[in-house]
Amino acid sequence: MARRRAGPHGGVDLGGTKIQTVVVDSRHAVLGEARRATPTTGGPADVAVAIAGALREAAAAAGLRPSDLTHVGVGSPGAINAEAGTVTSASNLPGWTGAYPLAAVLADDLGTPIALGNDVQVATDAEARLGAAREYSSLLGVFWGTGVGGGILLDGKPWTGLGAGGEIGHVCIQMHGGLRCPCGRHGCMEAYAGRGAMERRARELHDKGRPTELFKIARKRGRERLTSGIWARALEQKDPLATKLMADAVEALGAGVASVVNVLDVEVVILGGGLGVRLGKPYAEKIAAAMLPHLFNDHRPPPVLVAELGDLGGALGASLLTPVAAAAS
Amino acid sequence: MARRRAGPHGGVDLGGTKIQTVVVDSRHAVLGEARRATPTTGGPADVAVAIAGALREAAAAAGLRPSDLTHVGVGSPGAINAEAGTVTSASNLPGWTGAYPLAAVLADDLGTPIALGNDVQVATDAEARLGAAREYSSLLGVFWGTGVGGGILLDGKPWTGLGAGGEIGHVCIQMHGGLRCPCGRHGCMEAYAGRGAMERRARELHDKGRPTELFKIARKRGRERLTSGIWARALEQKDPLATKLMADAVEALGAGVASVVNVLDVEVVILGGGLGVRLGKPYAEKIAAAMLPHLFNDHRPPPVLVAELGDLGGALGASLLTPVAAAAS
Repeated sequence: MARRRAGPHGGVDLGGTKIQTVVVDSRHAVLGEARRATPTTGGPADVAVAIAGALREAAAAAGLRPSDLTHVGVGSPGAINAEAGTVTSASNLPGWTGAYPLAAVLADDLGTPIALGNDVQVATDAEARLGAAREYSSLLGVFWGTGVGGGILLDGKPWTGLGAGGEIGHVCIQMHGGLRCPCGRHGCMEAYAGRGAMERRARELHDKGRPTELFKIARKRGRERLTSGIWARALEQKDPLATKLMADAVEALGAGVASVVNVLDVEVVILGGGLGVRLGKPYAEKIAAAMLPHLFNDHRPPPVLVAELGDLGGALGASLLTPVAAAAS
Repeated sequence: MARRRAGPHGGVDLGGTKIQTVVVDSRHAVLGEARRATPTTGGPADVAVAIAGALREAAAAAGLRPSDLTHVGVGSPGAINAEAGTVTSASNLPGWTGAYPLAAVLADDLGTPIALGNDVQVATDAEARLGAAREYSSLLGVFWGTGVGGGILLDGKPWTGLGAGGEIGHVCIQMHGGLRCPCGRHGCMEAYAGRGAMERRARELHDKGRPTELFKIARKRGRERLTSGIWARALEQKDPLATKLMADAVEALGAGVASVVNVLDVEVVILGGGLGVRLGKPYAEKIAAAMLPHLFNDHRPPPVLVAELGDLGGALGASLLTPVAAAAS
């Protein structure tokens, strides 16, 4: 396969809530983009159909067909095998338990080679190469969305350990009496700060009689889930339950992110993900303040910067991936 | 300065409780060693005198004078400036607040060049090059002693971030209602698992009437502090307070070390430090078991191995340091 990196190519950010696609030129300028909701039922094949549809739409917006693209990169949750082109155990996606040959299925459907990468790692790479962390060589990316993912860049290179590093959402911040995390453990940072866990808590507390506008806003917007926008709206309205749960989330992010900074001593923290990007700088500042009591080197706290590439960061990062010849054949 | 690495050289492990020195040949074989208690009063100059005395003793045991050594490496707590030859803010050492020119003072006293390094990092390096982690390229060293220090090796290279990475003792494992740590924060792993914090808790609880043999054993041995040996003896006797505090320490180490492994996904955890080496394999196994409920990838937990170089690891690691010409002049 000839790697014509110079031509237009695509990027897909496969998230637990939405699928974001972009088509970019060789200088990373966005020629077209499209977004749709991630299927909440079915299985990997349904997700693949939704990805292909969204990518086709982004290509059309750029005046192109998918087969005109040199390749498409996909940032996915779960365990990625880039060589085999498979995604395994993507827990925030419907019915995705075993290994699914996502690269081959999409390559067949779209007629262009597919590259797979880890969603958090590609978003981190995007911020490091094109976004808020361009000036830094070591960083911790905090992707605050359905879950809380972590991307690590050390000396300019991604660090993923044996392949599953960066699970900052499952740093234990409350070993006794901690909340139950969607992962089944107790006291994980994500149990307090992941949007999925926050929605579950909101629902439980609302069912017990705690007043909140969160679910009314969702109904009004025709949403099944509490999206980042719904949380932002409820916070603007000073909804008491949303305010309380968000304060808990910020406190947990402070303890957990500071703990990781104590270990890695990186230059900068980049705040991304659906909630991170939507809530932006005021919340980056709240999180920085919540980190201080737990930072060992509190005389030189790292800056906490909002991801500059915003909602497109994951898809742009995926577009930086290079297909493996075998997976694309 | 000619770097005659081939000749006999020295290593010093400067700990909060003891100073361990070695004199080794070019193949790292120990020719002589000596140990003395770290001064608990006075200041850096008193510590420097004690270091020089212990090093002289190790040299004598090897049939050498300090000036026969090509150089001496010192692994120290606090902030190290290897180029300037200074140690700053070593909180477990008496009266050591400002920057102290330890390298120059020792070089004058001993008549040989001095190299400075971080105590935890040199001990990690020793295990990686000469000890339990020889077969691994990524590891987390857990140095369980007066405090809980962390040494990180990734892709065969130490990672210390901006210079202060590896502070795993100050990972927050209990954000609400956590014990007060010697560092002044609350809920740090070290507040539960550091020997200094454990001694303070033991004293407080004993003063409130909780029965324990810990302080009787210390008096019998003529010790002011609860050394690792005293804790080991009390555990053998099934002393209820020692057993309870040690169970808390193991639980905290489980939560904190698992959290760091979730972030770094290293191949192996090496358990060192005074308590780690003294309590050995049975406690490495207890810690591994305590990690499991918090490990994200609990289907492939990293092995937890006891540091092979034992009490000499820190001093052997320090002997691997190379003097900076400027600091040795």
